[in-house]
Amino acid sequence: MSTTFSSFIPPKRILMGPGPSDVYPQVLQALARPTIGHLDPQFVALMDEVKSLLQYAFQTKNELTMPISAPGSAGMEAVFVNLVEPGDKVIVCQNGVFGGRMQQNVERCGGVAITVEDEWGKQTSLSKLQEALEANPDAKAVAFVHAETSTGVLNDAEALCKLAKEYNCLTIVDAVTSLGGSELKVDEWQIDAIYSGTQKCLSCVPGLSPVSFSPLAIEAIKARKTPVQSWFLDMDLVMGYWGKGAKRAYHHTAPVNSLYALHESLLILKNEGLQESWKRHQTNHLSLKSGLEKLGLELAVDEQYRLPQLNSVRIPEHIDDAEVRAKLLNDYNLEIGAGLGGLAGKVWRIGLMGCASNQKNVDYCVNALNDVLK
Amino acid sequence: MSTTFSSFIPPKRILMGPGPSDVYPQVLQALARPTIGHLDPQFVALMDEVKSLLQYAFQTKNELTMPISAPGSAGMEAVFVNLVEPGDKVIVCQNGVFGGRMQQNVERCGGVAITVEDEWGKQTSLSKLQEALEANPDAKAVAFVHAETSTGVLNDAEALCKLAKEYNCLTIVDAVTSLGGSELKVDEWQIDAIYSGTQKCLSCVPGLSPVSFSPLAIEAIKARKTPVQSWFLDMDLVMGYWGKGAKRAYHHTAPVNSLYALHESLLILKNEGLQESWKRHQTNHLSLKSGLEKLGLELAVDEQYRLPQLNSVRIPEHIDDAEVRAKLLNDYNLEIGAGLGGLAGKVWRIGLMGCASNQKNVDYCVNALNDVLK
Repeated sequence: MSTTFSSFIPPKRILMGPGPSDVYPQVLQALARPTIGHLDPQFVALMDEVKSLLQYAFQTKNELTMPISAPGSAGMEAVFVNLVEPGDKVIVCQNGVFGGRMQQNVERCGGVAITVEDEWGKQTSLSKLQEALEANPDAKAVAFVHAETSTGVLNDAEALCKLAKEYNCLTIVDAVTSLGGSELKVDEWQIDAIYSGTQKCLSCVPGLSPVSFSPLAIEAIKARKTPVQSWFLDMDLVMGYWGKGAKRAYHHTAPVNSLYALHESLLILKNEGLQESWKRHQTNHLSLKSGLEKLGLELAVDEQYRLPQLNSVRIPEHIDDAEVRAKLLNDYNLEIGAGLGGLAGKVWRIGLMGCASNQKNVDYCVNALNDVLK
Repeated sequence: MSTTFSSFIPPKRILMGPGPSDVYPQVLQALARPTIGHLDPQFVALMDEVKSLLQYAFQTKNELTMPISAPGSAGMEAVFVNLVEPGDKVIVCQNGVFGGRMQQNVERCGGVAITVEDEWGKQTSLSKLQEALEANPDAKAVAFVHAETSTGVLNDAEALCKLAKEYNCLTIVDAVTSLGGSELKVDEWQIDAIYSGTQKCLSCVPGLSPVSFSPLAIEAIKARKTPVQSWFLDMDLVMGYWGKGAKRAYHHTAPVNSLYALHESLLILKNEGLQESWKRHQTNHLSLKSGLEKLGLELAVDEQYRLPQLNSVRIPEHIDDAEVRAKLLNDYNLEIGAGLGGLAGKVWRIGLMGCASNQKNVDYCVNALNDVLK
């Protein structure tokens, strides 16, 4: 290797894209504390606190609540490989990228995915789900995305779960972008399996995926006739390490420093309070909306189901999408997101997640857009 | 939740167990730098450097060389789920915990594992492997662990690969504990798929798993008749993000800060030089050996195939294993490892990995043991 490399000093960006979001300075500090062993009694005590703080964030009493040692996509996979056996039917609601990914997960487990499709940018339709449930009385589970990061749509998790439960289905929820930013009540809404990410409204570094499984989900896992196809994500094995009691069996080496960071970010959420955090995300969203409207920009998603933490903004005609984003990044150190799939070139995705959801960022973003769009 | 938690301040340990090892202070500094987007052009440039530095560490020109965004166990799984299809026969050499885990991986992919078993603490026998290869001319691959962290044995990777190649098998190598600490030459030794971890001789934080696949391994992946069962670990999808070219497709959100850390640790390795690092691990191992012998302690593994970075030490009779380790941890902030499986209670595992492999640590450990064993 002839090239000479040197230490990487990243630029100081303001992260207002679809994630990662800006990380709390205290979280970065926690991240850099000295590594200790993954079986050290002090680390085991930290793990218990992380579990307890996650139970608060998810609003659940589920014992099986912990972070998977990998990003949200692995959390998604953890849920599906544990709950879906070959031949199992899962109804998957799709109104964006991540519903599609759920379908692929079901199919890679040998399951059969029945899709309920709605237009990208619209909410999942309850009546369409009901039709699918009527047509598939043997469906084992209903899966949907709570906050579709690809479009900026909030699905009605409470109503979708209630409907699924009327048909005795397990409920599987993607809460990657909702956790901490939008109202979410795992126990009250009867969610059986849920996964999230650390790099969105928790304002922690990317790389971990908090998950939670209800007692009913655990029953379904215990009733499996085939082994879980993933060794790394087999919850039965994972719980040997994350479970209760002093005796923790080695499964894999936990990402110790990332867990310091997650602990710190969950502590910040707990100290602010969930209700306050949801309210703050909504307030700053309304402020952004008002600022964008003054520039003549429109939000792409209907008001009733707009996400506060991920704002899809219509790109005005004759505006070069990539050029605007490049200017914001290079001249303003401001990252906003591009549209995905059918929305590429049609929308920008402006995130207001976690600690990035504040009035200063709203002003900075609106002013920068004002300059660049002149 | 009634309990009040506060920020977690870990104790300052000296990590001389089986990993994680002590992390370079510069690596912790790099880890805590501000997060940027996973599609930021500057981050994409960093990814290219990480790939190039990993090629150096692995001594390979393999294009498909990158870190999996999860710990070593996921790296292991990435290798098996991509290379093993239902019905494929894989010869798995077992002389410790991790060979057993390889077998489970093969079986969870629907493959057939043919095991070559040697006693824990002994090397994998070439003649036994040859017998297995003769008896299974349809074997697709041979898999083994280079450095068995559970016992402290170095398997002869070069000879095992050479033999496997005589029978046209793909070679799969676990290099979790060897990378950076023991001689390892992926291209020269004809290794087709290899995975490692960041928390051993690289002295980086735990949570990532560097992998590399040869052109022959890629051919085997391309020739698959069935989809890879894991979406998260499907190398074809992963490479859409890590591959060459300006256009990186979103797959999952990379663990941005952990990659800063890996970059820094690989840079340190590159600056020291691989040969120098291997030599340093050997020198400090010999020094530890000599110190332990002065205390009347013996290494458990035969000299010809002892690992320098993981020293299995026989626990003297009438000594309480757990009590000694607890004293070392609590009174000396020194972590050493327990024995696993059949070696539990019989050996301690003293790691000298990465930046923890230095004379000061050797002296500290020998003196602490001297005090505690008095």
